[in-house]
Amino acid sequence: MKAIISISLRGGVLDPEARAIAGSLESLGFDNVRDVRRVRRIELDLDVADRDTAEEQVRAMCERLLANPVIEAYEIEIPA
Amino acid sequence: MKAIISISLRGGVLDPEARAIAGSLESLGFDNVRDVRRVRRIELDLDVADRDTAEEQVRAMCERLLANPVIEAYEIEIPA
Repeated sequence: MKAIISISLRGGVLDPEARAIAGSLESLGFDNVRDVRRVRRIELDLDVADRDTAEEQVRAMCERLLANPVIEAYEIEIPA
Repeated sequence: MKAIISISLRGGVLDPEARAIAGSLESLGFDNVRDVRRVRRIELDLDVADRDTAEEQVRAMCERLLANPVIEAYEIEIPA
């Protein structure tokens, strides 16, 4: 079963890498970029029987390893 | 106008970070993870008049800065 995790910084947390991308784009002449956001996406292929188990397990993975809940928010998607 | 860029490694290119995630998940007891893939997602807010211009511009950004076309493939999505 596939699971897609999208991890992004919480609102108000500065993202230096996104700032760097915005600055580099501007110095290349792309001067109409109003905002840059980065999202880390992790796609898992899991050997589980049902969606509920998958979601519960992926949530535990996020809390214990994949995301930093202090500064990051995550969304879990389990495509049908 | 929003643009979403999804950048992933081309097939056959090793991803040490994904391997590390898989290894860490296993050592935490999640032993049913068959595969881990990472996707870098960049969301831009652009000041452009129309979709075609946006797409053309974002493609140029990918080729010149955001992606490494030798090892990475990218997809551009411009939500309506």
